[in-house]
Amino acid sequence: MRRIDWNALGADERAAVLRRPAQAVSDTLRAGVRAIFEAVVARGDEALRDYTAQFDGVSLDDFEVGAEELEAAAAQVPANVQAAILEAAARIEAFHRAGITQPYEVETAPGLLCQRVQRPINRVGLYVPAGSAPLPSTALMLCIPARLAGCAEIILCTPPRADGSADPAVLLAARQAPGVRVFKLGGAQAIAAMALGTASVPRCDKLFGPGNAWVDEAKRQAAQRPGGIAIDMPAGPSEVLVIADAGANAAFVAADLLSQAEHGPDSQVLLLTDSAALLDKVAAEVDVQLARLPRADIARRALEASRLVLVRDIGQAIAISDAYAPEHLILALREPRAWLARIHNAGSIFLGDWTPEALGDYCSGSNHVLPTGGAARAWSGLSVAGFQKAITVQEASRIGIASAGPCAATLAHAEGLQAHARAVELRLEQAA
Amino acid sequence: MRRIDWNALGADERAAVLRRPAQAVSDTLRAGVRAIFEAVVARGDEALRDYTAQFDGVSLDDFEVGAEELEAAAAQVPANVQAAILEAAARIEAFHRAGITQPYEVETAPGLLCQRVQRPINRVGLYVPAGSAPLPSTALMLCIPARLAGCAEIILCTPPRADGSADPAVLLAARQAPGVRVFKLGGAQAIAAMALGTASVPRCDKLFGPGNAWVDEAKRQAAQRPGGIAIDMPAGPSEVLVIADAGANAAFVAADLLSQAEHGPDSQVLLLTDSAALLDKVAAEVDVQLARLPRADIARRALEASRLVLVRDIGQAIAISDAYAPEHLILALREPRAWLARIHNAGSIFLGDWTPEALGDYCSGSNHVLPTGGAARAWSGLSVAGFQKAITVQEASRIGIASAGPCAATLAHAEGLQAHARAVELRLEQAA
Repeated sequence: MRRIDWNALGADERAAVLRRPAQAVSDTLRAGVRAIFEAVVARGDEALRDYTAQFDGVSLDDFEVGAEELEAAAAQVPANVQAAILEAAARIEAFHRAGITQPYEVETAPGLLCQRVQRPINRVGLYVPAGSAPLPSTALMLCIPARLAGCAEIILCTPPRADGSADPAVLLAARQAPGVRVFKLGGAQAIAAMALGTASVPRCDKLFGPGNAWVDEAKRQAAQRPGGIAIDMPAGPSEVLVIADAGANAAFVAADLLSQAEHGPDSQVLLLTDSAALLDKVAAEVDVQLARLPRADIARRALEASRLVLVRDIGQAIAISDAYAPEHLILALREPRAWLARIHNAGSIFLGDWTPEALGDYCSGSNHVLPTGGAARAWSGLSVAGFQKAITVQEASRIGIASAGPCAATLAHAEGLQAHARAVELRLEQAA
Repeated sequence: MRRIDWNALGADERAAVLRRPAQAVSDTLRAGVRAIFEAVVARGDEALRDYTAQFDGVSLDDFEVGAEELEAAAAQVPANVQAAILEAAARIEAFHRAGITQPYEVETAPGLLCQRVQRPINRVGLYVPAGSAPLPSTALMLCIPARLAGCAEIILCTPPRADGSADPAVLLAARQAPGVRVFKLGGAQAIAAMALGTASVPRCDKLFGPGNAWVDEAKRQAAQRPGGIAIDMPAGPSEVLVIADAGANAAFVAADLLSQAEHGPDSQVLLLTDSAALLDKVAAEVDVQLARLPRADIARRALEASRLVLVRDIGQAIAISDAYAPEHLILALREPRAWLARIHNAGSIFLGDWTPEALGDYCSGSNHVLPTGGAARAWSGLSVAGFQKAITVQEASRIGIASAGPCAATLAHAEGLQAHARAVELRLEQAA
């Protein structure tokens, strides 16, 4: 890992340290995704079958997981994993339930009531990737808020295994949303199927979930099409930024950096510390722990683009972090909560020595679908609200139109919209 | 306006009635917007100057409205319009204040606290169109929630007038967000400037506001770019769907249809009623009222694509409306509130005879930036929440990691992510 003394750098060098590895979407990828969308428009399920054979190496007649396969999933999952899935689900539900958006109402004038009410999005499409391994935890993070929101139809796509089956742990997790329909489809073709609809896959109103560059580009292209398809947020490589002080536990910090690095060679890992001694200890610990990891090759490649950064003080570290807007931010500090109010841009924050990112990835209760690539400047992590939309409602009585109508008519005339004014004035004449 | 008997139609014909006039973005428009983005990347303010000369017919050295022009605005706005702007602002603020998202926290396990806290989006870019006329009401709808959210920097773009000044009523409305910086820029070039940043216009984190097809395409292209720019929602032609029963006031209904039709030739207007007599009366009233409108030509063109639809009963009308997902839905019914629970897809709903859409457009207190084109299936109208993002926070003590850690480690092993498991297990060893 490269070591950097922040205060020895010029502005351009600082910008370079915080620059994420090029995420520029290649023309090839963009055109490839466009071709997949066009093929799914033209040939529907037939195209999905071809792509599944090509990318997943499996020939499937029917993509949907049948009731039998769904029922049988539990028996194939080790008992301790089953128990962990249920325990995580309970905690995710407890936290997400507190986040269900409540309706509100205000009488904004005598006889004029304004409300904002929530409605579940009717048909949602969830994507659970299985790039390096199937991710039952992602199925939990998507299915539980979808169920709590009350979505009528929940469609979940996840890549098929080599034998044409779906991962049983993913299925078990998916059943946290009773009535979920699971399709064995991966990559951009899964996104295209849910965005466009085919004979077997229903067209969804909004798409959710993380994924690789193909999935990200497919979600972006789905959102570009006219007709109202929404997406939860852009998908991108996972990232962690750790801010540690001299009192931090170097072994813990190294373990947190490595747990991010093992996600993939494009994972982002940054350490900011005001202690040169801690920086040395972490660097040494990374080497020790790396040697023991089964996914050491992946982690090593991610670490090549990573940085250990010496800063002047923790305040400077917080400011650098806010400029970077990390997906995950770990505050391995003695008084972590004291810094919270100064942090504006981050997906999820982990306070203190005893809160590894892995806790949030699985079972603290918070959602692990989080904004990456700097999107935390404007996007939130997933919550029940993402599966709902709001409708405003207003109701005026004769008294209400009399109290608020003249203001509306004046502004309508000022904007040159006479028919707007007329719709109010006609009523004012009759309400009097 | 075309009259239709819904129950005499086959499935294809029904779909055709609800089909919005082609919103397919032409290749020309897409390429035109792309060229504008490329020019702004390459030549910054210079490109903005060229486009402003070309599209707005004005030669501007400096786009930003100076303190003097901003201060002087009030004196140029008639007193009754000034008062109406302040009255509308107060009502919009009252309603939006009730919608400020609150933080929440849950102790999801002993010693493990999860929270979700809100942060304002730092720098927001607002677009106030002036296609047919300047829209101070839109400035209110954007500036007030931005201020309530606490956004640190509020940038507003609105097209210059022929004399190079900004519309004073828009400026007066914009001052509802003290510290707002207003730039005289319109169309796709304004969106490109706020998305990319130039020497004079700061790069924004999220873009808001309605606009024509160029603005909509520019917002979509801004959202496509890597790096985390967000947009409030797709922009599209405005629409109203009115459901009226036999007891409705035909003159009111006709006025509501016309007030939508005058927005532009691409506005969408639909009436659903179970009363053939009311349908006749509304058709006659539209003709009478249309003759008196200054914008009759625009309205007439919009009405050509509009429909008066006879349905079996109000339940059927509600179902059709839900399939269409209108931006504005007026329930000119005797018991409008009784139907509310059955409506899932709409931007904003107007209950009863005394609540014209124009009330919501200006001053009921609800926001008039709403999802169009069917986007109401998955999107909400604008609120303070759109100007904020949430961060999740978790903090485990030694007890917390001991209670939730084993679950995380089990799931990490199940997903083959050993470094994740190790980050938890290391702590479990030391917490014991």
